Amino acid sequence: MISVAEATRLVWSTLRVLPPETLPLAAALGRVLREPLHADRDFPPFDRVAMDGIAVAYNALAAGQREFPLERTQLAGQAPLTLKNPQAAIEIMTGAALPPGTDTVIRYEDLLISDEASQRVAAVQVVPPTAGHNVHRRAADRRQGDLLLPVGTVMGPAQLAVAATVGAAQVQVTRRPRVAVVSTGDELVAIDQTPLPHQIRRSNGLMLQAAAQQAGAETAAFHFNDDPEVLRVGLPPLLRDFDVVLLSGGVSKGKADYLPQALQEAGAEQLFHEVQQRPGKPFWFGRHPQGAVVFALPGNPVSTFLNYFRYAQPWLLAAQQPHPSPAPTAYATLATDFVFKPSLTHFLLVKISNTPDGRLWAHPLDRTQNSGDLASLLHADAFVELPADRVEFAAGEGLPLWRLA
Amino acid sequence: MISVAEATRLVWSTLRVLPPETLPLAAALGRVLREPLHADRDFPPFDRVAMDGIAVAYNALAAGQREFPLERTQLAGQAPLTLKNPQAAIEIMTGAALPPGTDTVIRYEDLLISDEASQRVAAVQVVPPTAGHNVHRRAADRRQGDLLLPVGTVMGPAQLAVAATVGAAQVQVTRRPRVAVVSTGDELVAIDQTPLPHQIRRSNGLMLQAAAQQAGAETAAFHFNDDPEVLRVGLPPLLRDFDVVLLSGGVSKGKADYLPQALQEAGAEQLFHEVQQRPGKPFWFGRHPQGAVVFALPGNPVSTFLNYFRYAQPWLLAAQQPHPSPAPTAYATLATDFVFKPSLTHFLLVKISNTPDGRLWAHPLDRTQNSGDLASLLHADAFVELPADRVEFAAGEGLPLWRLA
Repeated sequence: MISVAEATRLVWSTLRVLPPETLPLAAALGRVLREPLHADRDFPPFDRVAMDGIAVAYNALAAGQREFPLERTQLAGQAPLTLKNPQAAIEIMTGAALPPGTDTVIRYEDLLISDEASQRVAAVQVVPPTAGHNVHRRAADRRQGDLLLPVGTVMGPAQLAVAATVGAAQVQVTRRPRVAVVSTGDELVAIDQTPLPHQIRRSNGLMLQAAAQQAGAETAAFHFNDDPEVLRVGLPPLLRDFDVVLLSGGVSKGKADYLPQALQEAGAEQLFHEVQQRPGKPFWFGRHPQGAVVFALPGNPVSTFLNYFRYAQPWLLAAQQPHPSPAPTAYATLATDFVFKPSLTHFLLVKISNTPDGRLWAHPLDRTQNSGDLASLLHADAFVELPADRVEFAAGEGLPLWRLA
Repeated sequence: MISVAEATRLVWSTLRVLPPETLPLAAALGRVLREPLHADRDFPPFDRVAMDGIAVAYNALAAGQREFPLERTQLAGQAPLTLKNPQAAIEIMTGAALPPGTDTVIRYEDLLISDEASQRVAAVQVVPPTAGHNVHRRAADRRQGDLLLPVGTVMGPAQLAVAATVGAAQVQVTRRPRVAVVSTGDELVAIDQTPLPHQIRRSNGLMLQAAAQQAGAETAAFHFNDDPEVLRVGLPPLLRDFDVVLLSGGVSKGKADYLPQALQEAGAEQLFHEVQQRPGKPFWFGRHPQGAVVFALPGNPVSTFLNYFRYAQPWLLAAQQPHPSPAPTAYATLATDFVFKPSLTHFLLVKISNTPDGRLWAHPLDRTQNSGDLASLLHADAFVELPADRVEFAAGEGLPLWRLA
């Protein structure tokens, strides 16, 4: 039986980078960029007017001039006008390109504008401190050719917007991981069936599918009964056609726990079976040399769920990265003392709170944790990881945190 | 000009609860539950075997018996066998219903099983401490009729799994908010066009659509040029047919900023225009009496984005709740001193880190924040809110945090 650290290392050793695909930009939300996107021109691409008001030559202001006849009006999106008379001004709007012949913008709030004999005149009430005032200079933010979105960027709303700005109507991103979700167990019936007294409804498959979708995967669901022949026929196509196979159940030492043997007969190599952890000791992990990575999670719902988030979700996220590395560890402060005696790493369900000093607190759930009690997950939003070599954990200590989302 | 607190109050005053719809369970990921889901039977529904091994009557162990002939084997999912001879045992697997006549399970690890003249016998090596050992008693977790998922539950993977367990093949959830995303501005061209020197490509619409989708909305996108006639024709259908209209641009005091007037002519009531904040002072907010709530955000991309997350995203999330209330405020600790002189509430872009003591740190971005610099958003994952009545903020103080996701 191996440690959690060794299990983590072996899971990471199987990481592969998934291939790219090209998508319309709007379809790339949540995806990982596989091509660098550079500024196609300077940002701003022109000397950009930052306030509504008038554009003038600062020299005139410096020479003491305070009244400016208005030559014309230039809106955003219009080709820039040119100031004809250096003692005049152009009325101008935010977002417009600064007119040649001007270098400074005075905002309406600092002006009085009057009509005199059909010639509008702006009287400056507050003189701007320097030339260039209220002008957002060309290339002030980024220069043409600057790298804006490096390979590996996760495309959120702001990243999509930047890609749009540089004209990336199509982008190359990692394709979605293809995940087969397999539940096993003869005691399980479908959601819409009424179970006999000794049966229960399937729930792990739906849980794993939803969680894998949240990690960006495409999923397909299967249920296999505890029958070596069913597994012998059913497993090989999954190992061949998917990037990842997520199984739940059938990995303990029981008479009907055929999975470890069936997986190996189907060509999967076992990397470990059993981890020094609770919940989820019987976790089996392996890979097919030409096919899928296989997370065969214990069937108790709490075990299934926590081990998915501890091992499989980080794998799915990292496999979308061209240069994968584990995400930085998150941490929370334990809110109450906790004792855990077995020398196993313990994944302790907690509820998170956040105090005004900026601290995250992990509150262990009231109930004794029980890997069969699916409903206990409803009140948790994370788990903390208690190392195997200690028994007592004191309120106030920081612990690694894994969010269930 | 009103304060951020007053703007927030007015935004919340328009909150309405969106109607429910019925969906297949697997389609309900991320949705808000509108019907309570109760345990349809006890959990576990039977005395559930928690380990692979043998089931015995504890009385026999108490009387000193250590060797048990094995009558039969019962797998998970099989109807329970009955122990015929109270001095015998039934070999049994995790997940099976405890056989009548037995009350205790001894796991394989604590047994030696031998075949004697074709009669298999289990010799107990470690005697369980009490009757009921390794049995997860019926109703130990939840009782039939217990409320498991109250109205208002957000359906994550665990919630879907619990709903599956109680047979909720279809569930009633809030329908998605319908959001019209409208960009305005004559200087904007489509992503796939090459802008003239004084033009830029549209990006706010894509950004707002992606962000609203992440908050659970259905979105439709529109672009209106700065033309009162276009707005007069274009706005009324949006105000009538959508729950929310998100606009960007056209709300300043410029010559081409027709939106506030056009919205009111289209029947929208203005609740405020201009907020004591940076970025986003020109923010206009209103509602149509029989129609949409209208967030008319300033057009500078950073203003658009931060004001969406400060005002519109919380509205969209809360409108899916049958008993809406603002989410609890999140907080981070300011990592470096910061000075902001204007008497405006300042939304300061930050990068978040999390130290092993469990604290969240907010690191102000290096660049001077500039509401036109879309690319500055790429390095931020949140903003902190600096109150208007203070100038100096010291490293180490806790501040309200708004994540850009």
